[in-house]
Amino acid sequence: MDDYPLNVHAIIRHAALYFGENEVVSRDVDGNIIRLTYRDTYDRVQRMASMLEGELGVRPGDRVGALGVNTHRYYELYYAVSGIGAVFVEMNFRLSPIEITHVANHSKVKVLFIDAPLLPQFKSIIPQFKHVEKVIVMGKVNETIELSGLKVYHYEDLIKSGSKYDFPLIDEKSACCACYTSGTTGMPKGVYYSHRSFVLHAMAIHQVFPMNPSDSLLQLVPLYHVNGWGMPFAATIVGSKLVFPGMWSINDLKPIIDLMINEGVTRSNGVPSVWISILNYLRSMNPKPRFNMKVVSGGSEPPVAMMRGLSEFGIEVIHAYGSTETSPLTHVYVIKPEVLNKLRSDDEYWSHRAKQGLPVFPMERKVVDEYGRDVPWDGKTPGELLERGPWAIREYFNDKRTFDSFYGEGFDIWWKSGNAVVIDEDGYMKIVDRLKDLIKSGGEWVSSVDMENYLMAHPVVYEATVIGVPNPRWGERPLAFVVLKPEYKDKNKDALRKELLDHLSSRFVKWQLPEILFVESIPKTSTGKFDKKVLREQYKDYFGKEKNSEI
Amino acid sequence: MDDYPLNVHAIIRHAALYFGENEVVSRDVDGNIIRLTYRDTYDRVQRMASMLEGELGVRPGDRVGALGVNTHRYYELYYAVSGIGAVFVEMNFRLSPIEITHVANHSKVKVLFIDAPLLPQFKSIIPQFKHVEKVIVMGKVNETIELSGLKVYHYEDLIKSGSKYDFPLIDEKSACCACYTSGTTGMPKGVYYSHRSFVLHAMAIHQVFPMNPSDSLLQLVPLYHVNGWGMPFAATIVGSKLVFPGMWSINDLKPIIDLMINEGVTRSNGVPSVWISILNYLRSMNPKPRFNMKVVSGGSEPPVAMMRGLSEFGIEVIHAYGSTETSPLTHVYVIKPEVLNKLRSDDEYWSHRAKQGLPVFPMERKVVDEYGRDVPWDGKTPGELLERGPWAIREYFNDKRTFDSFYGEGFDIWWKSGNAVVIDEDGYMKIVDRLKDLIKSGGEWVSSVDMENYLMAHPVVYEATVIGVPNPRWGERPLAFVVLKPEYKDKNKDALRKELLDHLSSRFVKWQLPEILFVESIPKTSTGKFDKKVLREQYKDYFGKEKNSEI
Repeated sequence: MDDYPLNVHAIIRHAALYFGENEVVSRDVDGNIIRLTYRDTYDRVQRMASMLEGELGVRPGDRVGALGVNTHRYYELYYAVSGIGAVFVEMNFRLSPIEITHVANHSKVKVLFIDAPLLPQFKSIIPQFKHVEKVIVMGKVNETIELSGLKVYHYEDLIKSGSKYDFPLIDEKSACCACYTSGTTGMPKGVYYSHRSFVLHAMAIHQVFPMNPSDSLLQLVPLYHVNGWGMPFAATIVGSKLVFPGMWSINDLKPIIDLMINEGVTRSNGVPSVWISILNYLRSMNPKPRFNMKVVSGGSEPPVAMMRGLSEFGIEVIHAYGSTETSPLTHVYVIKPEVLNKLRSDDEYWSHRAKQGLPVFPMERKVVDEYGRDVPWDGKTPGELLERGPWAIREYFNDKRTFDSFYGEGFDIWWKSGNAVVIDEDGYMKIVDRLKDLIKSGGEWVSSVDMENYLMAHPVVYEATVIGVPNPRWGERPLAFVVLKPEYKDKNKDALRKELLDHLSSRFVKWQLPEILFVESIPKTSTGKFDKKVLREQYKDYFGKEKNSEI
Repeated sequence: MDDYPLNVHAIIRHAALYFGENEVVSRDVDGNIIRLTYRDTYDRVQRMASMLEGELGVRPGDRVGALGVNTHRYYELYYAVSGIGAVFVEMNFRLSPIEITHVANHSKVKVLFIDAPLLPQFKSIIPQFKHVEKVIVMGKVNETIELSGLKVYHYEDLIKSGSKYDFPLIDEKSACCACYTSGTTGMPKGVYYSHRSFVLHAMAIHQVFPMNPSDSLLQLVPLYHVNGWGMPFAATIVGSKLVFPGMWSINDLKPIIDLMINEGVTRSNGVPSVWISILNYLRSMNPKPRFNMKVVSGGSEPPVAMMRGLSEFGIEVIHAYGSTETSPLTHVYVIKPEVLNKLRSDDEYWSHRAKQGLPVFPMERKVVDEYGRDVPWDGKTPGELLERGPWAIREYFNDKRTFDSFYGEGFDIWWKSGNAVVIDEDGYMKIVDRLKDLIKSGGEWVSSVDMENYLMAHPVVYEATVIGVPNPRWGERPLAFVVLKPEYKDKNKDALRKELLDHLSSRFVKWQLPEILFVESIPKTSTGKFDKKVLREQYKDYFGKEKNSEI
């Protein structure tokens, strides 16, 4: 019986057949609202599939890329491309030109879809995509597009010319789509998802975040960000309404709030910075709106004040955790009755909800120390999070870095997340740091992330980062780099240093306290993260090369 | 990445790891309440697995059978048996001795588990199970058990002697368990489920019947009845509390109602006759209890009065449909917003909820006429329901009847359900009859089930069945067999016949009305269903053999 395959296109077919009248609402790239049904959408998907296979010359296994924001068109491409056996490459247009070019060339993108408003930015870059033969523009353009000899099409023209297409059942192990992860080291790595893993992931979301035909999902997380965390596909399975926001910015939230109100949104998703901005916007409104929403927050720990604040507007935040390598969902914060009974105060309750939570069945995790031994569930001993399961990858596509990031063989292959986490006595996970940023001082662990957050909460600090530096006495000692706010730059440094150490003392024990260096700026990576690698290299002898030999 | 297999034992391992303190409550076969946690249960499962592999000599692929009611022990066996690669055969102890013996011998059950209270009934039957070598008794027994030379063990002794067992990941295509379906023709047919289909089915239940760690599931549907409809495994995935009722009867519901109240039950399942009995019991209580329950009703259409009545006690009934061949779930009644808007009255609402509903993703259905063409979605044209999907079987085990019940090849194999159904304009399915019982009179379809139900609702009728009989003018004509209640047996038959036809006229058009025959009794099959095959044979010339040649 196992020969019946799990196929991505079955998702939209199911919705079109059984929830055909339910809506797919999309704010187009020009800001206009497009209203379609699932039946319309499936018709469009079929038309696009027929054109991909026909005019666009795409064959099974070929790569079809897209540079775009969350619209109905981007959503349609998942089904149209994977349905003909090709692979949909979700290109993060916020990467640097060099990185995007790497993604296009590494995956051999043959046909490229791009949102019209992104054309000016990419006109000079696309010619460096070595394998691209055809470009399809999504959204209205007023002038003729010249792209150094490439053939250019318009999305809606293709839809008009397309015809009915019967998707065959295809091998579930074949790739349906791909994302490239941007690490802090080297070029983005290719993560290829199979039809099977994509469908299983969409099904599993209902175990922890159930939806139904009366729900309305506002998809804020970019689709190119691990398939929008898989949520639009989970919603489609059960016929929930879909709402795509098109182009938007956290500096102009009116269109988003309008969608939430006008489209009866009950489910959404986003990173904490988005939710914080939405919360601030809601607070500025008069009268205050009231929602009945459950939303997923992921990417980093949701601040307690944010969760509390949103709850006052009828928005319940659920913390979920995952990675590109795991489709992404592996952990969700779900409260167990015995844990609820233990939490004594409102503060304890909300802090607990900020944890990454429990694994989603059947994903497996292992948290191990440097010798590969399981760490105790004590809420304080950090270990590296390893993961495996039916929607975790087992290799990076065509990439030697696979050998560093996976271990085991046969069924028994684990992905090394590189995250340092602790597990509390109830099994709830909390991320404390990137493993390589964790500091071991005097035989005890210090979380650089905790310390940075705590430093940055002080009013004089503009930004701060913390690294571990070899130290003859302690093994490692934390070294904090602090950029002061302009108005504090001329103040007495010794006094400020003492003030910051006093501040840290309320949270860290004495032997954990860092050496503080005031700097003008902190080096950053292309994606804006602190570049700790550079700092570690520069300051590796800070506590003395000579002294090291004393040991 | 697809090499990571879906395994049944991962379900209990997950619950033990992440919901270890949550409870598995079981009313033992002697009526005592046993309280375990998921952690305890996994420990017991491991111990039993070690004994199955050791002392009991079970090898991968071997069959291990069970005759028992819903207790923690029966639940444990799914994991212990399938976890070592053997196949758990769920034997329906309500079948006839001949049928049960067939199941044991056809599946080659080597080791047999049996509830102590069932021993007297099966003592003389078990020696006919040709392959059984060892018997394990579940529950307390006071005397020494002699079973014609078979080695006899006690379940709890084995648990005590067992040890830790690490379940390996095993091929998801291997069989984990088997059910035998009892049809009206011939011996029960073997339905073998793979690890993969079992796990997928459990995951999918959350799409339509979500549960969470705060839920408490009372498992009323027998576990031998298609794995208890898969619900305890869906509940385990998310750590819901499990409540097993042990031995009970609809004639003594106090223990069930006590469990519902004492164990904070929020989810349950059962066939309509069970829910009707529970409703009557609740109505007899003073003060009236109030629940917060969602329950699945399946097996046959839930009466509107039953759903309405239960809703007054805080019990929401959800109609689900499936078959042994499909694990079982394929359809669930889920309301779509546009349908809700169309339903004009409370009566319309409840009648609509009695339909079988919409397919559960990614199960596929096809409803075809006798020429294999899709029937229109008009709510009245019946067709045969065909199904396929990742938890539908593609053959009966080692059974020639496979050729009659499946068609297609490769991915494209459909199971022919034998059910005649109609699909309404919104895609909702309603079963109208068994295909072979459907009557085609004057070119239009008449549902024998509808007519029987309508006849049996009349106060003079004790029981009634309807068949189609060849008729020269109409093609077929319905022939109704009516057994009168004792107090009406002496009444004037012509007057009664007129009264019944008048009664039917309010529901059926004139040309659909049957010829009514009053009989003393109706022949039945071994499982108590009307034996229409016998009636059809006896009455095939009722409207005249000669006349048939007139056509």
